[in-house]
Amino acid sequence: MAKRKSMQHDACPVARSVDLVGDRWSMLIVRDAFDGISRFSDFQRNLGVAKNILSDRLSALVGEGVLTVQPASDGTSYQQYVLTSKGESLFPVVVALRQWGERHLFASTEPHSLLVEKASGKAVAPMLPHDHAGHVLKPADTLVKKITVK
Amino acid sequence: MAKRKSMQHDACPVARSVDLVGDRWSMLIVRDAFDGISRFSDFQRNLGVAKNILSDRLSALVGEGVLTVQPASDGTSYQQYVLTSKGESLFPVVVALRQWGERHLFASTEPHSLLVEKASGKAVAPMLPHDHAGHVLKPADTLVKKITVK
Repeated sequence: MAKRKSMQHDACPVARSVDLVGDRWSMLIVRDAFDGISRFSDFQRNLGVAKNILSDRLSALVGEGVLTVQPASDGTSYQQYVLTSKGESLFPVVVALRQWGERHLFASTEPHSLLVEKASGKAVAPMLPHDHAGHVLKPADTLVKKITVK
Repeated sequence: MAKRKSMQHDACPVARSVDLVGDRWSMLIVRDAFDGISRFSDFQRNLGVAKNILSDRLSALVGEGVLTVQPASDGTSYQQYVLTSKGESLFPVVVALRQWGERHLFASTEPHSLLVEKASGKAVAPMLPHDHAGHVLKPADTLVKKITVK
């Protein structure tokens, strides 16, 4: 993971996030963790990923404080990988990726899984950035203030 | 990009999105495009990425309809890579990655770039999913309804 180290001084928060979770498997592991998957063998079965790659990605996510390792809740000797609060706050990232996919990557007749509100069963409404007056912010309404790192 | 093809029938919108933009360079190219970068040489300089990799990722993003190629707006013979409307709707993904990074990946004294509202100069407020009554949705308030693809 030399790539990650080389970016440690990147002043762009997007780049740092991408360095941590911006590879296919890490993001899908986080998605699965939100869906309640916690055991190595269950991640492995669901993702169809090679064990050595899964092991590498889980260790990295634990190392970065996104996941934590716990003894299994059922008293068996298995370990559980559970989202930390830092990991849980990736929820908007997963929701944003999902909603973009729902909208743009499926034909209208093509089935896909759906994120719903538990209470109402309704599909979760599109998540968008808003300004302080409550209006939707388009890209052109925003600006990145760059910082020069000395 | 065999990985992408193998996932074409994945019924999970998160997986499809990750297959398209879930690699380091693709996401950073999209970020740069939001920041107004449009020329090959400018992407190359800003990202410090090898030309062959950049060329490959730009072609893939054009092929997926995230970017489109236009003649340069200044009348020179350069080409411009510009976000399509499908690409522009990745804005919440980039904002979510940025805000997670801002919150979790910088020490309190460490400088980072900041996404601000053009009109007010204020930092863009944290973007979160909401239920239909306007309350913030936590992961535990939601459920993924899986679809069995026949």
